Order: sequence, then structure tokens, then C-alpha cells
Amino acid sequence: MILSKKAGESFTVMNELVLPNDTNTLNNLMGGRLLHWMDIAAAISAQKHSNHIVVTVSVDNVSFKQAVKLGDVITISAKVTRAFSTSMEVRLEVWAENIPSGVKAKSNEAYYTFVALDASGKVVKVPEVIPETEEEHHLFASALRRRQLRLILAGKMKPKDATELKALFSDDD
Amino acid sequence: MILSKKAGESFTVMNELVLPNDTNTLNNLMGGRLLHWMDIAAAISAQKHSNHIVVTVSVDNVSFKQAVKLGDVITISAKVTRAFSTSMEVRLEVWAENIPSGVKAKSNEAYYTFVALDASGKVVKVPEVIPETEEEHHLFASALRRRQLRLILAGKMKPKDATELKALFSDDD
Amino acid sequence: MILSKKAGESFTVMNELVLPNDTNTLNNLMGGRLLHWMDIAAAISAQKHSNHIVVTVSVDNVSFKQAVKLGDVITISAKVTRAFSTSMEVRLEVWAENIPSGVKAKSNEAYYTFVALDASGKVVKVPEVIPETEEEHHLFASALRRRQLRLILAGKMKPKDATELKALFSDDD
Amino acid sequence: MILSKKAGESFTVMNELVLPNDTNTLNNLMGGRLLHWMDIAAAISAQKHSNHIVVTVSVDNVSFKQAVKLGDVITISAKVTRAFSTSMEVRLEVWAENIPSGVKAKSNEAYYTFVALDASGKVVKVPEVIPETEEEHHLFASALRRRQLRLILAGKMKPKDATELKALFSDDD
Amino acid sequence: MILSKKAGESFTVMNELVLPNDTNTLNNLMGGRLLHWMDIAAAISAQKHSNHIVVTVSVDNVSFKQAVKLGDVITISAKVTRAFSTSMEVRLEVWAENIPSGVKAKSNEAYYTFVALDASGKVVKVPEVIPETEEEHHLFASALRRRQLRLILAGKMKPKDATELKALFSDDD
Amino acid sequence: MILSKKAGESFTVMNELVLPNDTNTLNNLMGGRLLHWMDIAAAISAQKHSNHIVVTVSVDNVSFKQAVKLGDVITISAKVTRAFSTSMEVRLEVWAENIPSGVKAKSNEAYYTFVALDASGKVVKVPEVIPETEEEHHLFASALRRRQLRLILAGKMKPKDATELKALFSDDD
Repeated sequence: MILSKKAGESFTVMNELVLPNDTNTLNNLMGGRLLHWMDIAAAISAQKHSNHIVVTVSVDNVSFKQAVKLGDVITISAKVTRAFSTSMEVRLEVWAENIPSGVKAKSNEAYYTFVALDASGKVVKVPEVIPETEEEHHLFASALRRRQLRLILAGKMKPKDATELKALFSDDD
Repeated sequence: MILSKKAGESFTVMNELVLPNDTNTLNNLMGGRLLHWMDIAAAISAQKHSNHIVVTVSVDNVSFKQAVKLGDVITISAKVTRAFSTSMEVRLEVWAENIPSGVKAKSNEAYYTFVALDASGKVVKVPEVIPETEEEHHLFASALRRRQLRLILAGKMKPKDATELKALFSDDD
Repeated sequence: MILSKKAGESFTVMNELVLPNDTNTLNNLMGGRLLHWMDIAAAISAQKHSNHIVVTVSVDNVSFKQAVKLGDVITISAKVTRAFSTSMEVRLEVWAENIPSGVKAKSNEAYYTFVALDASGKVVKVPEVIPETEEEHHLFASALRRRQLRLILAGKMKPKDATELKALFSDDD
Repeated sequence: MILSKKAGESFTVMNELVLPNDTNTLNNLMGGRLLHWMDIAAAISAQKHSNHIVVTVSVDNVSFKQAVKLGDVITISAKVTRAFSTSMEVRLEVWAENIPSGVKAKSNEAYYTFVALDASGKVVKVPEVIPETEEEHHLFASALRRRQLRLILAGKMKPKDATELKALFSDDD
Repeated sequence: MILSKKAGESFTVMNELVLPNDTNTLNNLMGGRLLHWMDIAAAISAQKHSNHIVVTVSVDNVSFKQAVKLGDVITISAKVTRAFSTSMEVRLEVWAENIPSGVKAKSNEAYYTFVALDASGKVVKVPEVIPETEEEHHLFASALRRRQLRLILAGKMKPKDATELKALFSDDD
Repeated sequence: MILSKKAGESFTVMNELVLPNDTNTLNNLMGGRLLHWMDIAAAISAQKHSNHIVVTVSVDNVSFKQAVKLGDVITISAKVTRAFSTSMEVRLEVWAENIPSGVKAKSNEAYYTFVALDASGKVVKVPEVIPETEEEHHLFASALRRRQLRLILAGKMKPKDATELKALFSDDD
């Protein structure tokens, strides 16, 4: 197994066109469709990093702006931020571009977490992530805090043990 | 406008069959497809409460067990927990049942938040939620804490102002 | 094998949102899409009763009202009425609710019949149905008449041998 | 408006390939998918006859053989048998062909009934059907009996008034 | 193996209804959806000729008229023109019919080429095509010229060796 | 209107996961599905260049390798090569990557041509393309030859007038 891979190697871009069946009766993109596309983009990214089939284990707080409309072009970019032995956190950015105005706005950001499976469906270790750019270093560091939040919310860690997170509540950043 | 409605009136159940296109090459349900179904079930619930078209504004931390397989029957139940003037929080429970073993297991829980729109796409006020059962009262109360967490994660509230949440980090519950 | 199961154990509810691709150019739900959803709801119900994979063997006369529109919420309920050794009759009720008017109307009723298959695809015996409510008893009794009609229409029974049905044509009910 | 059209002018053929998402876990075509395809084929046929958008009003007893498998080629043929002022009955035949064995078997027959709508969604009169072949004449005649059965089952006609149908139960055909 | 089959035996007709998700925001059918339908119709035709699973190997220049609209009925006809040992060329004609005007216009023509595979995925020989009608003879003859063009464009033949094609550029036809 | 835009501004990347419904019974990606994805990627690219809704007018010879399998990750890249007053030629490259082997192979190349439409559906002029890289210059130049070939195949130009193409048949390149 490869022990570590650069964050940039998992970079994935996906473009989608908002079609009628993706929208509600006000012609707004439905959130569930976007969550589905984001999951596929994030899974492709995690597969590039791990060279294994992956399954989603958690989705972090995702917030939606209400501007995505029928006919807009969606651009989803995904990149693995950090690996924790068998799990990988993937960061997503979503942009929506209106044709013909050409206005392009960030629709949302999210973090999806995956584990990699071997052919028999068992969880396997994944390579470490090597951050290179300044942003990759920042995301690599903050991944620990987000992981503690996930563990608390899943009831697998006591809030008082979440050292990284407690700091967040004593001083602002 | 109706000023308040019982939580139970928004109760929605959705059954889905896991078909080949919903699975990866290991025959596991892909997380994105489930997120999409959950969004539709939650939107129907929020529409029952508000009698308006709704759009997803946020999805809370969702964690997936890895057991949902091709051919399983998914049961998603959704109910509005609390309304905050123009937004509604919907709680979802997902169960997967294997045919023919008959084994049924809770797959996950999640919270989706929606706002209601009028015919011109403008945000409108929604009725208050009247909790009745013990569980509905508990979810109504804890909704405030989850809302503060969402506002912090969206950068719209400073952690030190999240009174409800700070309490969480000083003593366990 | 379980020899008998209560009718209520097979009760299944499915909610669907009428999306653009489910409608014709007048924004009416197309009948075929509803027949497809009904088949899935009925199959889930028959699988709950039999704990086996099931396949549709017949669909009884279904009549459609013309009111289901784009954006409506469809509620399909399904319950096994009676088993005939290897086949199960499932009764469906379909309701359509308009958002935002809140008007909810029964769209149609139908009967779907299934047989259960084992892993090698062979037909297997299914548990008897125990009716409990008054309506379940009524549906259990009338299932015999509907079965004779199906057998006649499939050319597997001569009209003169359909004792239950002949009675129908001598006095009204 | 054209007052009458030949039955043959509404003839429609549709071929479909049975794909993974159309099948259950035993690789059998699910009945609901076939009902959906049949509805589209029948609607196209009724549109050719009426030159209007049509909506399904009823589906007669459809029975399924269990042989249709993943990868099979489905051939659906549809033709209007008779018009009753505003409604049209369409007869469907479905064949399934296995590749590579080349074995082709009739899977089922069915009758779908449609009404035609104008641009404002109001029901309109449709041309009469002129049967030409022997089979078309036979189907034209028997359409009356099937219509009485539909009206009885929909509770719109009393069994004792169904003269055509009563005859069916006194002597075999 | 059958050594030769009549062209007419591979004749395939497919009707499709243009639904909302098949169109862009101007309600025009998107070219990609039509290419997909054409591929399925052509594959069914090539499977009828070869009695094997087939895979697309090339698609010839397809040109689209811009008139196909939401709600139109598409008719695709496909027939094998000629076989070259292991490959088959299929000719497609596409018509679009407007409901309710009844206007029917040829939308486009195209050639798709397939090879047949056995159960292990290996390429197999296919029967020769016997042209019968005048049009079939013409298409059989011109298939050679189209094949040379494909080989040149795929870089597998030098333009100067394409005897059939060179003739095309010296005198008009 | 902007008179000219750099080729690179229209660059579009799309990743797709090959799901069960995209494959035949040998688990090979069906050509038609890929043609559909390519059309969407190319349309997005042409929309970026023109800032208008676009419709496909032609698809050039596309040849498929037979290696794309269920579970593979498809990467489609698209860029406008040249504009001809109202039409734009888009070049596509398709790569398929196998997970877990990590082997990535070019699956095919193709040219799709689009015209841009205004809100009333009328064809509009599009900006000229400014090629920058060596490859962009090469594609810009050869676009003329491909256009002559399209015009000849569509019967809109006589072969003897296709000066650029005739040269192709006298000396190899």
C-alpha cells in the first residue's frame, strides 16, 4: 500500500446542468439532488486517494443558498483534506453559474467522510494526506476539530474530552 | 395564516426499494441516494406543516451505518420538531429491512432545515409547532441547541454567544 | 415457515412528490408513473407478508381521476388482503394532496397480485392472512370474487363455474 | 374535427431494453416498470388517434408471465380498438425476446383507456374508430363488454344493467 | 452460426415521448438524449441480426434539426445495412411528430457501428447481410465508403488508400 | 456582445461514475449513455463561450474502445475549438479510470457542434475563439477541414468545393 499521497492528487471537478426533474415547482434546485451529486463527486475524490471502493460514513452540516435555478450550471470541486487511519474527510465547494447572465456564485461548502472497502467489503487502511498549499495545510489542521464534533454528535466522544473543540468555545477565531 | 400546528400533523413516512442504480459495485446503497430520499421525505413533512413550497436550507451531521444492501426496503419517517419564525427543523429516522431475513435495523437519524416560500419565491412565516408526546417535547427543547450549532458553523453566530451550546461543553449529558 | 400473519403487519405507506418528468405537457401526472409507484408500494407490502422477493402477476382494473398535478404529494397505502396458497392480493389506496391549498382527495384504488419466489426463482407458499378490523374482514371475503374475475379474464376459469361472481350479476350490492 | 379514423392509423410500436434498474434482485423485470412503458406506448397510440394530449383513465386486468429477464428486448404494440365519444380504449401486446437465444414469447396483453384534453385541460370529443381487419372488428365489438365491466367495477353501472356482460355468465365463449 | 440474414429481419422501431427532463430551458429536446435513444434502438437492431450482446464502436456524423419540442413523439427506425466480419453498420432514421398539430418531420439520419460479443466478452463473427429492397442494396454498397471514412478518421487507414472515398472527391454524386 | 473569448475560458471537466443502469449485461458502459454525458459536457462548454442556451447541431465520428466497465470513473473534458459566426465546435476527450487498479486510459475523442439561441429560440452570433496554446492553434486550424466534411456529409457542400479536404486525399499527414 502507498503510505501517503498529496492532497492535490484527489482533486475532482464535476459539472452538472440543472434539469426540470431536479427542481421544485418554483424552479429551484432541490437540496436532495445537490446532496446526491456532491456525494458522487466526493466519493470519486476519496476513491482517487484510496484506490478502493468507498462508502459514505458521514455528512457534515451543509447549508444551502436559495439561488440555484433551472438551467444553471453547477460546478462541484472535491479534495481529500485528511485521512484518519481508515476514514477520509473530503471538502466540497459548489458554485452555480447562471446562463446567460454569466453570474457565478458560491452555493455552498460541505465535508463528507468516507471509509474505503476491499473486495470483500471489509474496511481497509488508507494513505495519509500530504498537504502542500497553504489552504490544504489549514484544512488538514482544522480536520481534527471537525472530527471531534462528528464523534460528539454521534455519541462516540464526551464533549469534555474534545480538547480541540473546547478551545473554540473559549475564544473566537 | 394558522398560528400553530401539532407536531404530529407533519408526520410523513416514505418507503423505498434499493434498486441496482442506487448501489456501488459492492451492492451497498450509496449515501447520496439516501440523502436525496431523506430530503424529499423531509420536504413533504415541512410542506404539510407550512402549506407552502419549501426549500432546504441546511442538513445537519448525518452518519451512515454500512449495512444497507441492494434489495433492502428503506423506511424514512419525518416530523417537524420546531419552527423558528420562517424556518422549520425536520427530524428524520431511517430504517433498513432485509428481505427475506426480515432483520430491520436503524440506519441513521438526521435533521434537515427548510424555509417556506410563497408563489413569488419570497420567504414566509410558518406556524409554531405544538409538541405533544414526551419525545416531541424533548426534540422541541433540544432544537434550540442544534440551531445555535448551525449558526456557528455557518459563521452567523459567535461561539461565545451560544449560551445553550457552551453548557454542553462544561458538563456531559 | 410462519403459517399465518395479521393483515396489519403488511401495511405500507409511501409518499412521493410529483416531479416534472412524471407529468405530461398539461402538468398532469401520467398514469404509468403512478402504476409504477403503486407496484413498488404493493411489492414492499407483499414482501413484508411473505419475507420473500415477490413478482407482480396481475393488476386489477385501476381507474384514474384526472386531478393529480405537478407538485402534488402522493400518498400510497398498501396492505395484503388475502393469500391463496402461493399468491397474495394487495389493496392500494392513493391520495393526492395539493400544496399550498392543503386539499387532499382520493385519487384511486387498485388491487395488485403477487407471487413469492425463493432464491432460485421458484414459487413458494406464503402465510395465510388473518383479518382483524371490519374492513380487513370485508376485503378478505370479497377477495375470492375478485380472484374468480381474474381467472376468467385470464381464460383459466369458465364464467359458469365462477359461483361467487354469478351471484353478483343476479342481485346488486 | 375529423369524424372517424382507421384503427391502423394509431398503430404504435415501442422497443425497450431491460436494464438493471428495471429488475428486482432475481433479475426479473418488475411489473411496475412494464406498466409504465405500456402506458407511454398506449398514450402515444391514443394521441395519434385523437391529435390531442391524453390522460389515462383506466387500466384493465393485466396479467404477467414471470419470464422477462435482465437484458431482454421488450416489444410493445398498441392500437386504438374503439372510441366512446370522449374516451378511447387501446389494446396492448407485449413480447419479450431473449438475446442470445432468440426465443421470443408473448409476455402479456392489456387494455388501457384514455380521454383526450384540449390546451385548457378540458375533455374533448375524439374521432370514431373504423375497424378494417378481422381482428380489429372483433376487438371493436368486444370493447363494449369490457366497457361495461369497467363501469361496474368503478361503481358507475349496476351489474343487472350490463346486458352484454350478463350474457357472458350464462353461456361460455 | 447462421451465415447470412436478410436486412429486414433486423428492422426495429422505437417510439419515445419527449419529457421535461429531456429538454433544455427553451423546451428543445437535448441532442444527447436523442443520441442515447438512437444507441438503444440501434443496439436492439444489431442484436436481432447477430443474436449476441453488442457494444457500440462508432457513431457517424449525426446532424440535428432544431425543431424537436417537449411533448413531441419521436419515432426511431433502425436496420442493419452491412456486416464486415465482426462489425455491423446500423442506419437510423428519426422522425418527430407534434401533438396536436399532427405535423411529422424527419429530424435526422445516422449510422452507428457495433461489434458482437460472446458471454466472456470476446468479439465474435456476425452473419452477412442480404439486402433485398432497392434501398437496402444502395445502403449495402455505400457502407464500404462510410467504413473507409471511419477508418481514416480513426487513423487506421491512410487517405490515399481509401479508393472508394477518393472517387468521391473527383466527381460529385 | 463580446467579440472574442479565449479558448481556455470554455474549458469544462465532468466526472461521472459508471452505475448499473449505464451498462449492458456484460457490465460494459453503453455507448449511448456516454454520448449523452458528452453532449451535456460539450453544451456546458459552449454555453460558457457564448453565454447563451445552446442546442446540438452535429456530432462528428466518435469511436469507442470497449474497456469502460461498471464502477469506472469517467472524466470528460470539453473546450471550444473555433466559432463560425453562429456555430461552435467543441472538442471532447474522454478518459476511463478503473478503481481499484488505478489504470486510466483514453476512451475516445469527439467533436460536437452547437448553435446558440436567444430567449425566443432564434439563432444568435457567438464570439470568435482566440487560441493560445499550441494545441489550441492546431485545433483551430483543423476545425475548417472538419467543417467542410460535415457540410459535405449533410449535403450542403459539393466535395469538389472542399478545398481543405481535397488536400487531405492527395498527401498523408
